[in-house]
Amino acid sequence: MLKQIHSVKNPQVKQWKKLLTKKERDLTGTYIIEGFHLVEEALKQEELVLELIVSESVDLPPRWDYGSIPFVSITEEVAKAISETEAPQGVFAICRQESMSAESAKTFLLIDAVQDPGNLGTMIRTADAAGIDAVIVGNGSVDIYNSKVLRSAQGSHFHLPIIRGELTEWVNQLNQRGIPVYGTALENGVVYTEAAPAEAFALVVGNEGSGVSSEILTKTKSNLFIPILGKSESLNVAVATGILLYFLKQS
Amino acid sequence: MLKQIHSVKNPQVKQWKKLLTKKERDLTGTYIIEGFHLVEEALKQEELVLELIVSESVDLPPRWDYGSIPFVSITEEVAKAISETEAPQGVFAICRQESMSAESAKTFLLIDAVQDPGNLGTMIRTADAAGIDAVIVGNGSVDIYNSKVLRSAQGSHFHLPIIRGELTEWVNQLNQRGIPVYGTALENGVVYTEAAPAEAFALVVGNEGSGVSSEILTKTKSNLFIPILGKSESLNVAVATGILLYFLKQS
Repeated sequence: MLKQIHSVKNPQVKQWKKLLTKKERDLTGTYIIEGFHLVEEALKQEELVLELIVSESVDLPPRWDYGSIPFVSITEEVAKAISETEAPQGVFAICRQESMSAESAKTFLLIDAVQDPGNLGTMIRTADAAGIDAVIVGNGSVDIYNSKVLRSAQGSHFHLPIIRGELTEWVNQLNQRGIPVYGTALENGVVYTEAAPAEAFALVVGNEGSGVSSEILTKTKSNLFIPILGKSESLNVAVATGILLYFLKQS
Repeated sequence: MLKQIHSVKNPQVKQWKKLLTKKERDLTGTYIIEGFHLVEEALKQEELVLELIVSESVDLPPRWDYGSIPFVSITEEVAKAISETEAPQGVFAICRQESMSAESAKTFLLIDAVQDPGNLGTMIRTADAAGIDAVIVGNGSVDIYNSKVLRSAQGSHFHLPIIRGELTEWVNQLNQRGIPVYGTALENGVVYTEAAPAEAFALVVGNEGSGVSSEILTKTKSNLFIPILGKSESLNVAVATGILLYFLKQS
């Protein structure tokens, strides 16, 4: 039987809203996504979506295959209550927190303490576009399941492993495996065009203001910088990530 | 004598708030900026700042040279009323809309109908970092003096000409001058790494969803694309702009 929720006071609605906090997401091992594009991308993955939540005013595209996934019908009022966007599309899904394995990965993006959710999401999307095998997000960063991170990444969470991790441990491990690790640093760095593109590499990018932590910068093979050819002080961290990843992958 | 404004009901406050609309900005030929970094960058330009507005709780850095620029002291309440940020820094300036001349420019970024202010600001900042000589913003784009555009550009408005223009006319003119104009297109394009870097060039980037208008794409020397090496559908337009500009400038 179709489950229907008509009231914003329903305890289930309260529970969904709680998923907007990292604490509740980690406690339940789940997260919530919204919008046609994201939900469609999630449905393509096996056993990722635990529950589909759809406003009664919405017609789902016939191509969507949601098999036996539990389906909850909600009112527009409920959709507004659980949405984080100004104009909710009325389509949501509860997903399991799970990451693909990075075991066979050869190219890595390591992200150190990036705070802005739009930046982190765009960096994940950029790594995906550049064909990077795995993204490791350090502990000081905004949560990878933050709703704005998910929106900015436009479904890339479902395309490659996005793993929360301790970056110094990852860098040690990559060094042991013989994979060259490049840091990024404005000072005492090497112009990025001097790095040798390779089949396997890891790039570490860092916080919008303070960059990559100095502890990590001492453990890298070398630290790259992008020259500023005009008068701005720096590049946006997601833009810098795109320039570096495409250089390392393509040349 | 120091001008002081204590009430949010003061007509001057109302006038400042009106500058958050494009209509009022264009009517008065001015715009408002806020925050220490932006105002400091603006003060470095001659005859750009018409008025400095500072909360009484703020101490200006002694290095700031504002000479004979009119100075208005405001209360924190007034600062909150005219600010577009959640935590106002209490420092604002009214600036003249003026653009540096692009007459001697050899490298151009042309922006066609980019709607998101964060994207447009980041693209202006990226063009500045890449040492581009002038940015031409087409009519269908968000206003270059929108407060979020100004914030995301982090002062680059004061570093290079940012000009509102009719892009087809600009492309015609650049073609006449013999400057190679590159469009960007996902289909029927050339991989960007096949473009020949040059002393003079123009790059046209377009709307987040629909790209560069087809009319412009027929007028270009060639149209470039960045290959998607993974599973994402596309790159963020500011990230793509960074990859292309650094390739065309550096290689």
